[in-house]
Amino acid sequence: MSPYRVDGRRHDELRPVSLERGVNRYAEGSAIIRWGNTVVHCTASVEDKVPSFRRGLGAGWLTAEYSMLPRATHDRSPRDVQRGRMSGRSSEIQRLIGRSMRAAVDLTLIGERTILIDCDVLQADGGTRTASITCAFVCLVDALRAIFSVNQSRALPLTSQVAAVSVGKVGGAPMLDLCYEEDSHADVDCNVVMTGLGDFVEFQGTGEGGFFSRTELDDMLRLASIGMSSLFSLQRNSLELSPQESILFDELCAK
Amino acid sequence: MSPYRVDGRRHDELRPVSLERGVNRYAEGSAIIRWGNTVVHCTASVEDKVPSFRRGLGAGWLTAEYSMLPRATHDRSPRDVQRGRMSGRSSEIQRLIGRSMRAAVDLTLIGERTILIDCDVLQADGGTRTASITCAFVCLVDALRAIFSVNQSRALPLTSQVAAVSVGKVGGAPMLDLCYEEDSHADVDCNVVMTGLGDFVEFQGTGEGGFFSRTELDDMLRLASIGMSSLFSLQRNSLELSPQESILFDELCAK
Amino acid sequence: MSPYRVDGRRHDELRPVSLERGVNRYAEGSAIIRWGNTVVHCTASVEDKVPSFRRGLGAGWLTAEYSMLPRATHDRSPRDVQRGRMSGRSSEIQRLIGRSMRAAVDLTLIGERTILIDCDVLQADGGTRTASITCAFVCLVDALRAIFSVNQSRALPLTSQVAAVSVGKVGGAPMLDLCYEEDSHADVDCNVVMTGLGDFVEFQGTGEGGFFSRTELDDMLRLASIGMSSLFSLQRNSLELSPQESILFDELCAK
Amino acid sequence: MSPYRVDGRRHDELRPVSLERGVNRYAEGSAIIRWGNTVVHCTASVEDKVPSFRRGLGAGWLTAEYSMLPRATHDRSPRDVQRGRMSGRSSEIQRLIGRSMRAAVDLTLIGERTILIDCDVLQADGGTRTASITCAFVCLVDALRAIFSVNQSRALPLTSQVAAVSVGKVGGAPMLDLCYEEDSHADVDCNVVMTGLGDFVEFQGTGEGGFFSRTELDDMLRLASIGMSSLFSLQRNSLELSPQESILFDELCAK
Amino acid sequence: MSPYRVDGRRHDELRPVSLERGVNRYAEGSAIIRWGNTVVHCTASVEDKVPSFRRGLGAGWLTAEYSMLPRATHDRSPRDVQRGRMSGRSSEIQRLIGRSMRAAVDLTLIGERTILIDCDVLQADGGTRTASITCAFVCLVDALRAIFSVNQSRALPLTSQVAAVSVGKVGGAPMLDLCYEEDSHADVDCNVVMTGLGDFVEFQGTGEGGFFSRTELDDMLRLASIGMSSLFSLQRNSLELSPQESILFDELCAK
Amino acid sequence: MSPYRVDGRRHDELRPVSLERGVNRYAEGSAIIRWGNTVVHCTASVEDKVPSFRRGLGAGWLTAEYSMLPRATHDRSPRDVQRGRMSGRSSEIQRLIGRSMRAAVDLTLIGERTILIDCDVLQADGGTRTASITCAFVCLVDALRAIFSVNQSRALPLTSQVAAVSVGKVGGAPMLDLCYEEDSHADVDCNVVMTGLGDFVEFQGTGEGGFFSRTELDDMLRLASIGMSSLFSLQRNSLELSPQESILFDELCAK
Repeated sequence: MSPYRVDGRRHDELRPVSLERGVNRYAEGSAIIRWGNTVVHCTASVEDKVPSFRRGLGAGWLTAEYSMLPRATHDRSPRDVQRGRMSGRSSEIQRLIGRSMRAAVDLTLIGERTILIDCDVLQADGGTRTASITCAFVCLVDALRAIFSVNQSRALPLTSQVAAVSVGKVGGAPMLDLCYEEDSHADVDCNVVMTGLGDFVEFQGTGEGGFFSRTELDDMLRLASIGMSSLFSLQRNSLELSPQESILFDELCAK
Repeated sequence: MSPYRVDGRRHDELRPVSLERGVNRYAEGSAIIRWGNTVVHCTASVEDKVPSFRRGLGAGWLTAEYSMLPRATHDRSPRDVQRGRMSGRSSEIQRLIGRSMRAAVDLTLIGERTILIDCDVLQADGGTRTASITCAFVCLVDALRAIFSVNQSRALPLTSQVAAVSVGKVGGAPMLDLCYEEDSHADVDCNVVMTGLGDFVEFQGTGEGGFFSRTELDDMLRLASIGMSSLFSLQRNSLELSPQESILFDELCAK
Repeated sequence: MSPYRVDGRRHDELRPVSLERGVNRYAEGSAIIRWGNTVVHCTASVEDKVPSFRRGLGAGWLTAEYSMLPRATHDRSPRDVQRGRMSGRSSEIQRLIGRSMRAAVDLTLIGERTILIDCDVLQADGGTRTASITCAFVCLVDALRAIFSVNQSRALPLTSQVAAVSVGKVGGAPMLDLCYEEDSHADVDCNVVMTGLGDFVEFQGTGEGGFFSRTELDDMLRLASIGMSSLFSLQRNSLELSPQESILFDELCAK
Repeated sequence: MSPYRVDGRRHDELRPVSLERGVNRYAEGSAIIRWGNTVVHCTASVEDKVPSFRRGLGAGWLTAEYSMLPRATHDRSPRDVQRGRMSGRSSEIQRLIGRSMRAAVDLTLIGERTILIDCDVLQADGGTRTASITCAFVCLVDALRAIFSVNQSRALPLTSQVAAVSVGKVGGAPMLDLCYEEDSHADVDCNVVMTGLGDFVEFQGTGEGGFFSRTELDDMLRLASIGMSSLFSLQRNSLELSPQESILFDELCAK
Repeated sequence: MSPYRVDGRRHDELRPVSLERGVNRYAEGSAIIRWGNTVVHCTASVEDKVPSFRRGLGAGWLTAEYSMLPRATHDRSPRDVQRGRMSGRSSEIQRLIGRSMRAAVDLTLIGERTILIDCDVLQADGGTRTASITCAFVCLVDALRAIFSVNQSRALPLTSQVAAVSVGKVGGAPMLDLCYEEDSHADVDCNVVMTGLGDFVEFQGTGEGGFFSRTELDDMLRLASIGMSSLFSLQRNSLELSPQESILFDELCAK
Repeated sequence: MSPYRVDGRRHDELRPVSLERGVNRYAEGSAIIRWGNTVVHCTASVEDKVPSFRRGLGAGWLTAEYSMLPRATHDRSPRDVQRGRMSGRSSEIQRLIGRSMRAAVDLTLIGERTILIDCDVLQADGGTRTASITCAFVCLVDALRAIFSVNQSRALPLTSQVAAVSVGKVGGAPMLDLCYEEDSHADVDCNVVMTGLGDFVEFQGTGEGGFFSRTELDDMLRLASIGMSSLFSLQRNSLELSPQESILFDELCAK
């Protein structure tokens, strides 16, 4: 197994990741994540109503939408609206983002409100869904801050700190954080969503053009854990936590 | 952990599963799978053309569609065509079925043909996607038999025997093959697609309303393996293998 | 006129028809009809609401939907949802089924409920709309039984026993119950929906590629009557009528 | 049975009907039919291509489309495009118009051309589908004249003269040509499409809210025949037949 | 600059324009405008409700829809509903018609009602949007008369008399009222909506395939004014104003 | 007329505008324009094919698409794909952008290629369409540079330098470059697209809730001219013109 990859990284090395908060003046939470050459624009919007299937429960709801700008990719893709419907891929990804974010918040504590997470990919170089989740968490926290701003002594109703990363098997070797070129040649492609305490929210492993053994699964999960700790730190630093919030986040994250 | 479940099964016990082949007189492959109270009707259709993105490669293609009859569920659901588009859930499931079946066949050996798998759920009581995959494999084999019937000395271009089962964590305990009632209260819901040799084709674990630790993941994977061996036997028995085919299947399946 | 047909039947002979009730554990009424090689799966669902145009009248409503599985036919057809809309043919057929079933029941007596009839063709060999109607009537009776089960002394609000059969002119000769091969060569194709008392609910005669004279119309109607009596008996036997219900059905059907 | 109707007509009397040809300067055939208060605008367009399923046969095709302007009716109806799809009713009617017109022409003699009939209802007072058919025939003849204009010695490839009228049972009495008010209270509503020689092209009888006996069917068919002869004369007069065409029409119509 | 045009008109001359009111017996206002070979059918419908975004304001709303019959043009165009959506061009035009008509009426004085203007082009030879606006104003007045008919002493809540005309630059020369042949070769195409007092409601100038200088803009606006005075007279004459209405229109129109 | 506005600007003063080129690594041209609080992301993509209606002409084509991210606005708006179709407003704007850009380039000189301009509004505070056009021109130039990069001695096939700005009448006073708050209270709203030589490409003036006189039109056009000169300079500076390109731009722009 060669120690270096197409972009010179070690097999257990993330690409450079950064978060820029507050990129939209209207949204309750907003951020752009730059993860290698992948760039995702996220907003979290708070609406004072819930979908009909949640009405009257006294609890809130959270949903997510995901889309790519037409030229986010090497070749331009037609917009969904031109085809009259969302692609199966987009639908699958936004459902994943929604489930992951609902795992981070206690919706019974936000009142009959809906938090809508919008993830729009400005540039795609692999890992757009994991970048979306990692960035969406930061927007979610800002949206919760907006909801609870009138009563600052109240703790944010977070139940987990959530981030996501991809791992895969490329050329027979397990690797962390696949870029597009690696992803397109991967035997196995996994997306791992985890909590700060090391539990799994989602694990999706796909062996199109290949399988993965139990041993390979173990190797990939170990790599994912390595990447996670950087991502959780990045989220914390980006969020500029108050002392009270820092205590909450300490509880949500293994040291 | 209580040893018995809502329907009296042990935590590592499948519901009764049966396969009825040849239920459609036109389709190259067809079967109905009855898995507890879940009933799925599958056909495999062979068309002598490939989608445009596969044209001229000399290879074939395989795709799948999944749908539920309106009253497959406790309450009637509107048809997709009434809403003008496929639900995100159906889209996600049919993509999973397609990937799983493409993992079972060497498409470069079937010529410029498309195999279309249709999975229509007549009655749903949990596990419709895993039932669809397990049944679709049988239809796929019959479709390959139809393609290669003129040259019976040629081995079927199967690369794996593929089946699927659900596992989950219900009330804190790992369980095999969740029925609808268990699924709707599950902390964690996983769908496992495996090959006869014990490798993973897909693993999708979702912790909506809960997380799963590394230990729980290990427990659930062990349960999945137990269920798989029954399903592989059921598929073989249902397929009424010729001696030559039996040799092939012996290679595709761990004894 | 040759006395025998492509499948050896006489010109006034139905194909074998059977009804299997109770095929769905959730629906208030359900049955599969097997009519020659045509197989249709029907359910009747009861919902405790009516469409907006019927609200506040104190009466119920009944509507029907018809669809074919993609491989119900010799060649696979794309699903309606792929094309984004229902085919004109499906729309026309489901309107016919709905009108025919509304002719069988007094909707003012079922309260503000909607009965939804779903007819899904698993296999098509001609006569799918008449098979749907004949089967839907049986599901409708079971749905009415479910609505009125708490008050068994109340008679079911049936106004007619309704069944349907096709007749046509093939090779110049009138024939009862066309199979697909006959239908595709027919000069005239008629669908007849009748009551047990011999009245017409619907008569649709179409002479694509041919006309029909008044005499030929008379001949075809005579053949339809012959077929109807078998279908009414089949429905009655299938329904396992209680003594009270038998009295009602005696009134709805000419002996 | 009262001899007079809501608008003072006898039960066997048509409303006033007139045809105005040449209302569109681009279309190969065009006319407006005014039938009582029903007004339909028809065009027949000729295109030098056929749909893919007819290509290479050396024969032509004919298809029809039907639509109502939003305020053709007492209350305004939303346009189909607002709802994103054609209504089931429109779809059913345009299929009927298409079949009826295909029964009037020998498509093997028009080359690989498509004749598109567009029927747009400007004002609706019952009988829009039969008015459409009666008017479309006139447009069809003009379209055929346009196709064959270069070779005037060639006879038009008409196989029948086709017109249509409604009949029904209102208040227990059979009546010819229902206006909207009669139609909305009818027990039975029939649309009859016939040839000049007295054969049926289509017969659609619908007993929503009522049935019709064999005797009533006979009565209604007799009324339809009475109406037909006026309509065939109207079409001939409107078409300003050449001597050669008159000979052809004499053959297509019983004196 | 040649003084004569393709149809012999002077550069500052309108085509013949006529208005026929009362063409639909159900609509509160209706008219057909014939403007050269362009023919547009307009209705104004009054509904006793407003869209949700206007509810509870005590004021009304006005909206417009525009469509072309398939064979309004030289070559037949598919209906919008066949493509599943409105063309961008139709959408743009109907928004223009709606804005123009809202400029003519004080919606706060009509109660919670909606006036729906439908403009359906029967034949198109250039200038369909300006013909639609000019005709729609007449229908709007009739709709207001219908709303206020119970209280005839109340003045109609008109704020302007509104009409529209096209101007353009063809072959370098400014021209009034382009026909289709001129429009298709125009360097610049402008649509001008004005009030009777000479103010602009809308001005849309488009230089596809060319630009227009400030001087040319001035020339074109002067031509538009010339055309407007004829159109305002035509509207007044068509409307058969009562003495009281004449006083109102005198105020709305420069002498 | 008060000399100061809601944000302290003079009535003839633009908000701060900046262009950032090269924001997308795949697109042939890309830029973000920040115009006050309005932020638009533009890309220009080159494809080596043309739409069917342009095939075989040896010339190219240019088209544009416009969309807003859901939370570009104060309140979140649903995505077009959720509603199944593009809004009329978006359709109208993207047609304007396309026409404006086609006025800047000689498409006969780019071969059978299509340039696709995508304008996605990240944040909206008025003037998104004029910002899109001003930014799209810069992306267009970079796309032309990419097409002609192999032959650098060839001049870019630009026919005009094109930019756009809004003007309006607010509180009775003409103003340059309306922000959202001004726009929502404007009596008149105009969008002006001009060339560097002072000609008009498009002028769209809309008086919803008000009219504009000829004098006011003149005032607004004078303000537009003032804004244009800043925008043309900004585009030139942003483009980092080569000496050869500077000569070309000198010809396209009045000094």
